Amino acid sequence: MITSTGNQQVKNLVQLKKKAKVRKEQNVFLAEGLKMFQEAPEDRIRQVYVSESFEREHGEALLNHRYEVLADFVFSYVSDTKTPQGVLCLVEQASWELKDLVEQPDPCLLVLENIQDPGNLGTMFRSAEGAGFSGVIMDGSTADIYNPKTIRSTMGSIYRVPFVTAKDLPAAVLELKELGVRVYAAHLKGTCCYDEPDYKKASAFLIGNEGNGLTDQLAELADEYVKIPMEGRLESLNAAVAASLFMYETNRQRRK
Amino acid sequence: MITSTGNQQVKNLVQLKKKAKVRKEQNVFLAEGLKMFQEAPEDRIRQVYVSESFEREHGEALLNHRYEVLADFVFSYVSDTKTPQGVLCLVEQASWELKDLVEQPDPCLLVLENIQDPGNLGTMFRSAEGAGFSGVIMDGSTADIYNPKTIRSTMGSIYRVPFVTAKDLPAAVLELKELGVRVYAAHLKGTCCYDEPDYKKASAFLIGNEGNGLTDQLAELADEYVKIPMEGRLESLNAAVAASLFMYETNRQRRK
Repeated sequence: MITSTGNQQVKNLVQLKKKAKVRKEQNVFLAEGLKMFQEAPEDRIRQVYVSESFEREHGEALLNHRYEVLADFVFSYVSDTKTPQGVLCLVEQASWELKDLVEQPDPCLLVLENIQDPGNLGTMFRSAEGAGFSGVIMDGSTADIYNPKTIRSTMGSIYRVPFVTAKDLPAAVLELKELGVRVYAAHLKGTCCYDEPDYKKASAFLIGNEGNGLTDQLAELADEYVKIPMEGRLESLNAAVAASLFMYETNRQRRK
Repeated sequence: MITSTGNQQVKNLVQLKKKAKVRKEQNVFLAEGLKMFQEAPEDRIRQVYVSESFEREHGEALLNHRYEVLADFVFSYVSDTKTPQGVLCLVEQASWELKDLVEQPDPCLLVLENIQDPGNLGTMFRSAEGAGFSGVIMDGSTADIYNPKTIRSTMGSIYRVPFVTAKDLPAAVLELKELGVRVYAAHLKGTCCYDEPDYKKASAFLIGNEGNGLTDQLAELADEYVKIPMEGRLESLNAAVAASLFMYETNRQRRK
């Protein structure tokens, strides 16, 4: 059992929790909590850590995994939550290419530009899985998908929704267009209501930064500007809510 | 200019930031940031505080308000954000009764049970304004609506969406039913898809706790259980996303 916060593995876990760069170098991320551990793809789990209490009370959940035990206070020290469940694992990062996301017929995609809130980002992945989306494309300035708060907000969707971080997002959008994907921008300038276009064919939705929306450079690539009607004095909805409304409108049309 | 964090007003601001009880006793809440200040109803603003820099750079935004100036470091000390905009105001709490929320013909209402995340709660208010909802009813175990993070997430909707904190939520729901409001529960047991019922008549939507959903006691009062279809392995959507899907489906039906 590891009983010191000075332990090398413990120090490394803290670095992995805090720094995107370290996660990238080691090609892993931290998935904390029982649900995130149980849903992790077996072949991508590199290491499992449990607290002393967790091993005593829920040891059976660990099945035939090899694991390291941390003293409870050490586990709390590495945990990203206030009330840790007592299990976390190191999971290998996965990677997809743009072509993987458009493999199925009539793909539907979410394209994110400069989304800053880790919770919003994770919530969008969660809705993307629920709505049956083919994948998510993000730019480099969007929050790190492997941030512990993002991972938690995905509720496991991180394991199941394919995604690409595009070095050049406008180029990726142009590539989608060449592949026959129709591109919609969620935009205040939209004249068309979000539930009017036909999303049954290949579709992609551009969602911009929480405060500033899409850059002109990206918005100009869209085939159509669409907007969500708003009453009252509101200028916009929460970005994850807006993205979810587009995704579930797509889902609604494809169900009927 | 106030230059000490030991100042009585400063101490009071910190208490108001941290404690729901203190906010309740003084019948006010903190609204921080330029937008929240500009949208606050004039007659409910009790006091305005600005940072020294804000007064210098944006003094004109203060119009004819009386205000107190805080040294920049003092403002940062009382602020709830990492990069304060430099203006905050004390706004009087408002109160409504259930009957105020059902005054208009065919009201549509959001009913919240034990929502824990302040950001989720604020986001629901924001969507409620956008979708043109008549009001929000919450129970006492839902996060405090006057929590600074909730206030921020409402993006000003807190000033415009009427709400009630019900001491006895089941009793409030029964009262709605007696008034002819049809009550829908967002529930895993739902057999009916959320876009099937007709929400054009008076409707209320019960949304439960993020982890556990609705209590049986409350769910049993519903006229109908409805669910949002989910693909993949997901068990639920984010609570604010789910609530927003119900509210915008109502909005969609009433627009057509």
